[in-house]
Amino acid sequence: MPMLLSTTDAGFEAAFAAMLGQKREEAEDVDAAVAAIIADVRARGDAALIELTGRFDRLALTPETLAFSKAEIAAEIARVSPEDRAALELAAERIRAYHERQKPEDAGWTDAAGAWLGWRWTAVSAAGLYVPGGLASYPSSVLMNAIPAKVAGVERLVVACPTPGGVVNPLVLLAAQIAGVDTVYRVGGAQAVAALAYGTATIAAVDKITGPGNAYVAAAKRRVFGRVGIDMIAGPSEILVIAEGAANPDWIALDMLSQAEHDASAQAILITPDAGLARRVQAALEARLPGLERAAIAGASWRDNGAVIVTRDLDEAAALSNRIAPEHLELCVDDPEALAAKCRHAGAIFLGAWTPEAIGDYVGGPNHVLPTARSARFSSGLNVLDFMKKTTLARMTPEALRAIGPAAERLAISESLQAHGLSVRARLDRLNG
Amino acid sequence: MPMLLSTTDAGFEAAFAAMLGQKREEAEDVDAAVAAIIADVRARGDAALIELTGRFDRLALTPETLAFSKAEIAAEIARVSPEDRAALELAAERIRAYHERQKPEDAGWTDAAGAWLGWRWTAVSAAGLYVPGGLASYPSSVLMNAIPAKVAGVERLVVACPTPGGVVNPLVLLAAQIAGVDTVYRVGGAQAVAALAYGTATIAAVDKITGPGNAYVAAAKRRVFGRVGIDMIAGPSEILVIAEGAANPDWIALDMLSQAEHDASAQAILITPDAGLARRVQAALEARLPGLERAAIAGASWRDNGAVIVTRDLDEAAALSNRIAPEHLELCVDDPEALAAKCRHAGAIFLGAWTPEAIGDYVGGPNHVLPTARSARFSSGLNVLDFMKKTTLARMTPEALRAIGPAAERLAISESLQAHGLSVRARLDRLNG
Repeated sequence: MPMLLSTTDAGFEAAFAAMLGQKREEAEDVDAAVAAIIADVRARGDAALIELTGRFDRLALTPETLAFSKAEIAAEIARVSPEDRAALELAAERIRAYHERQKPEDAGWTDAAGAWLGWRWTAVSAAGLYVPGGLASYPSSVLMNAIPAKVAGVERLVVACPTPGGVVNPLVLLAAQIAGVDTVYRVGGAQAVAALAYGTATIAAVDKITGPGNAYVAAAKRRVFGRVGIDMIAGPSEILVIAEGAANPDWIALDMLSQAEHDASAQAILITPDAGLARRVQAALEARLPGLERAAIAGASWRDNGAVIVTRDLDEAAALSNRIAPEHLELCVDDPEALAAKCRHAGAIFLGAWTPEAIGDYVGGPNHVLPTARSARFSSGLNVLDFMKKTTLARMTPEALRAIGPAAERLAISESLQAHGLSVRARLDRLNG
Repeated sequence: MPMLLSTTDAGFEAAFAAMLGQKREEAEDVDAAVAAIIADVRARGDAALIELTGRFDRLALTPETLAFSKAEIAAEIARVSPEDRAALELAAERIRAYHERQKPEDAGWTDAAGAWLGWRWTAVSAAGLYVPGGLASYPSSVLMNAIPAKVAGVERLVVACPTPGGVVNPLVLLAAQIAGVDTVYRVGGAQAVAALAYGTATIAAVDKITGPGNAYVAAAKRRVFGRVGIDMIAGPSEILVIAEGAANPDWIALDMLSQAEHDASAQAILITPDAGLARRVQAALEARLPGLERAAIAGASWRDNGAVIVTRDLDEAAALSNRIAPEHLELCVDDPEALAAKCRHAGAIFLGAWTPEAIGDYVGGPNHVLPTARSARFSSGLNVLDFMKKTTLARMTPEALRAIGPAAERLAISESLQAHGLSVRARLDRLNG
């Protein structure tokens, strides 16, 4: 049974706080195994990578076959239907157009002291995208990771994707091609992350690693953080729908199920001031559930992690939403813009009844790699800036140094950093002498 | 002896690669101790925090004295000289002015399909700044961490600073006051990071933790990453100076020593096409060293980690700089802007002979919290965006959904995510039926 709460219940605050604190996914303790795998790849490079791929993916590789050849990619892609290709291309075009607008601007100005100040954005030189194999091998995620990197100006963009038993999803290869990926390596797990971070004879090291993965991949990313940049450590998916009484209960039920079907750890929550709608959505959801191909997964998610909360009004709904900081927030209300203005913490907001969250997963344009597990309080979905970095710039004139140098010298002395002070003083003495 | 290399040496590439791979600081393995401390603070809150502060800082606190009172702060600040206060205020004003320009803009537009798309930036609600105690307790770092947070719009900003034996640096408290910090807690170490991340009865949890610290603090930040946001894990400081023959060798020597005096693990490198200048800088540096208060530290840094590299020309210097990706890059050349354009990876660039790096540490305006250990390849110095996050926004119209919905449905089916497809299909059926 999903959790059914009303903010007027005596026990509401305790129950809501418990839900917020609930850990939906037990992190497997794989850190020791991952540390050993990373050390092995660092020490033995390709040999370790090939041996581990043989063990975990039942696949015999050589340095020459670590990457898909052009002929192999062409042969796989030829199996994709024209309709699937057209859909992927439409998605890529829309994702590219949205992310093009995220490109940041450089700046430079002269201030009152005569100092010239500014900053400059540059792209990361090389990035590696992790793409899971098997069931969670989503071509849409390839687009969502690779396109921001290309828009940022990343020069070398590679994919690591395990192919257990040699099986690959042709749509993943097509998505990589459409997005402009240079090379696809058929390796996965912690060993792939280690190869991308440290490099091997065949796989050149990258500067940034992004993309979802299992517990081994997540632990490996956490371990190589600092050596390379990483994106967030993604947790199970979540949706929060805030709806008013007039909303269509079947549409909301399907939107909630489209998160629940991802994973038994996924979470779908409805918050509404209308108790009648709450009942109608529950009924619609129970009616849709048995017919789903993934009924078992979606049912477990709904039973174990689902929640329906009835509030006094929409303001109270927004306040609860801010405490949840949902990955996906859908506003099925008359004035979604007004409500969105009150929702400060969310990865992505879907405004109005005609914007199902699934549009955002594929073709809306915004990224579908979003902060989970309440991390929208402090982080953003994947974007172009994740593949760029800012260099600050400063140029003093003699006059500027004369104006602000003495304060720098004073602070250096107060911090007992004498050489800092002397480096300023030597120049001031030249100006004064 | 610092490393002396010339790019025309036969062994140059191997020696340079070895220098790049060199680990200047052995990370103490404190992870198990830190895990236990965090678990203790999570389980016992204030009681654990107070007990650990008693043990590590020899300071007996109660929940009531965890934070400095207004009277205590006023009494400490009264000890600061007017000159030091004026210097701090000038620094704060310049840092604030620079960071105000970093505030990002929201966006929104209607695209060809009729979809309304956009994004919105919002501030993190609460941030905690870690400030080391003792020798490395720098008021300038308080400004550099706190001001971007305030400019971003962070509502609750707290500082955690250990006060071993009860001793605090009054300039740290003044810097916190000038920057607008709400509360200063006299706790430190992994226990302070745990309290900020998880909260105790007295210290409310924050959403983001920034600031430098020792191995315990760094390990604790790495462990709470995900529960809260963190900034980078900072390593020892570095400077790279690229200079031409006409440059002043004494100024360059002092700039290099102002990094070397931080820490024996710090690194100062000179790259120049002029072998004569290389010798003059070395001589100037050796001449300045013995007179420094921190001669032992700076000398160890220079001996163990210093380097002088003679190149064929400035282009080769820029190429080496890009492989180093220095935290601080100083360009003492005739046309620093032209050379800066070729230096893609650096935390901060200081242009021309009148811009000693120490200006950037205090009063330049740009942030002095910068990526170390080659991480400027993929990350930026601390900035306003570190205290903000982006929410993507999308609103479909019926027409937009009709245009792009079928592609979303098709991709959902190709990924075996049936409910995703149905959530779009149910709306399309309404439009068509």
